[in-house]
Amino acid sequence: MEPSRNPAAALGRPLTVAVVGATGLVGRTMISVLEERSFPVGTLVPLASRADGRTLRFAGREWPVREATPDAFAGVDIALFSAGGSVSRDLAPEAAKRGAVVVDNSSQWRMDPGVPLVVAGVNDEDAALHEGIIANPNCSTMQLMPLLMALRDAVGIERVVVDTYQAVSGTGQKAVAELEGQIAAHAAGTPKEVRVYPHAIGFNALPHIDVFREDGYTKEEWKVIVESRKILHLPDLRVSCTAVRVPVLASHSEAVHVETRDPIDAARARALFAATAGVIVVDDPAQNRYPLATDAAGTDEVYVGRIRSDVSVPDGRGIAFWVVADNLRKGAATNAVQVAELVASRGWLVPASRRGSRPA
Amino acid sequence: MEPSRNPAAALGRPLTVAVVGATGLVGRTMISVLEERSFPVGTLVPLASRADGRTLRFAGREWPVREATPDAFAGVDIALFSAGGSVSRDLAPEAAKRGAVVVDNSSQWRMDPGVPLVVAGVNDEDAALHEGIIANPNCSTMQLMPLLMALRDAVGIERVVVDTYQAVSGTGQKAVAELEGQIAAHAAGTPKEVRVYPHAIGFNALPHIDVFREDGYTKEEWKVIVESRKILHLPDLRVSCTAVRVPVLASHSEAVHVETRDPIDAARARALFAATAGVIVVDDPAQNRYPLATDAAGTDEVYVGRIRSDVSVPDGRGIAFWVVADNLRKGAATNAVQVAELVASRGWLVPASRRGSRPA
Repeated sequence: MEPSRNPAAALGRPLTVAVVGATGLVGRTMISVLEERSFPVGTLVPLASRADGRTLRFAGREWPVREATPDAFAGVDIALFSAGGSVSRDLAPEAAKRGAVVVDNSSQWRMDPGVPLVVAGVNDEDAALHEGIIANPNCSTMQLMPLLMALRDAVGIERVVVDTYQAVSGTGQKAVAELEGQIAAHAAGTPKEVRVYPHAIGFNALPHIDVFREDGYTKEEWKVIVESRKILHLPDLRVSCTAVRVPVLASHSEAVHVETRDPIDAARARALFAATAGVIVVDDPAQNRYPLATDAAGTDEVYVGRIRSDVSVPDGRGIAFWVVADNLRKGAATNAVQVAELVASRGWLVPASRRGSRPA
Repeated sequence: MEPSRNPAAALGRPLTVAVVGATGLVGRTMISVLEERSFPVGTLVPLASRADGRTLRFAGREWPVREATPDAFAGVDIALFSAGGSVSRDLAPEAAKRGAVVVDNSSQWRMDPGVPLVVAGVNDEDAALHEGIIANPNCSTMQLMPLLMALRDAVGIERVVVDTYQAVSGTGQKAVAELEGQIAAHAAGTPKEVRVYPHAIGFNALPHIDVFREDGYTKEEWKVIVESRKILHLPDLRVSCTAVRVPVLASHSEAVHVETRDPIDAARARALFAATAGVIVVDDPAQNRYPLATDAAGTDEVYVGRIRSDVSVPDGRGIAFWVVADNLRKGAATNAVQVAELVASRGWLVPASRRGSRPA
């Protein structure tokens, strides 16, 4: 279910909203999305590692970027964090202690059993259980969740294999500049500069996102595995993933193969997905219509197509598809704002243990 | 086993070798590979749809491009075809009728029960059964085969999921020019021209290679499924594939997930692959070493890395890896020349039914 777009009406007052990492790609996108969705911001508190005189435009005025310190969260209702794991580790509890509800886009708190991990429209009720911090899933996990939850509810899911085609915007502004620079160097016939990634991303496919674990998986791949289990409430779900960076500026694409408990065919999957909030089915191969990274960029929806029976699974218990979303928006900023809307409109601005109806 | 590199010694005479589609990307690469591998070419017969006065350089001299007609194959020992399915349909039997052994890179004959489908070093003995035509597998299938055959022989394989990251060179020179053009347009801030693919390939991932079938798969995906079964002699092998074009100039990459009959761990798979001819293991994540499209380009080997237990398969009966090869070379031209070497060095220049030891 799409969360209410009108938390102000439920709440009766505008909110003080902090954005931590406000000058980064995701932080800037969070501020855009707050404005686009008319989130009831009374006061915006843009925070960064340094207050260097910069301002950010929001709702027709300039807001000074302040230094992210514990005291910066005094009076803040909602704090959207996207400044990396160590900032979230140190400052999210400080913000929560001062009464803010933190929606954290880093990986720091996602697998903490006391922290809900929420995809708006997928597992909204989990957000109710927060004690001051709610985690935003990783972008690669995020776009899969509406589809897997729809399948889970309809036919049960047993195993998921997902291979990703991830945009450089997921790494940040420097990576976007690096791909642009390598492209320009190629066009000009000059040497490519390689700094952000260990190898050139231009004209390449790098099977390396985040750091490697002892078992040969990357942390990015492991996030897809464990975050999916938590969000779907399927602790034993079998998931495999290869996460790959491709020379795409914006939007992650994913090739997905799902083994289901009960049989499902393409028509039923298409109907299920079409009925899922926030999902748009683009699936008309005869007209060359399928989801594309360049089409999804700048939008808030999850696009799914290439929906077909997985012929490698017996008895019709497999479905394959292709899913694309803007990793900065639904994959990060938009979901964080949607979770904030959920918290504000459902009366969850107070931690669960301090709400009347719940035991402490 | 690597086929003999010295068919001339076995044969005692230089051969007349036709290359059909000689001016295309694969055809030109075939001619380069014939020269690099010192294939015993006495006479080169470059054939194209038109004889327009062009010549091609080979072994220090220029060879005129001739028109591909049935009579052009008179006196030809080996004909390497890479001019599309309809040319192979019409002319490969004509070449065979005139005594040439055809190694055909199109999809025309691959699934014909009377035509061997051969990856050199993987199923060499199948080539012995030819009646004038031997098919070269599709590039996406090709690079998988040495690895899957090694797994088949060691632990048995039950199911394969493969998602591809394919270079534009597989489409031909116009596609390479289109990606280069879109890149240059992006760098210059001018509009991108889109002609070869239905959508811009620059900064995109297109889940569409070859045409769509009624069942929602593309023909490219279906080739991986049925060709793998034929080459591996596993007619019931369960295979699923999503084939995706990415903005890479040369070399296809593939994310592969294999379910095996018996357990296998990463160390054993690594050892198996390292012992497989034509395969190079590049698998040292701690040093950021894994196969890359840009590294494989221009080489004849299959590169494998990111080898790890597939955690989504119980009891250690799953293995995942990342495989990269130059689609024009091992994926097409190099294998065709290797098959020609095999035929020449093993005494298979005569069709099986006309060899003494075999019944007609």
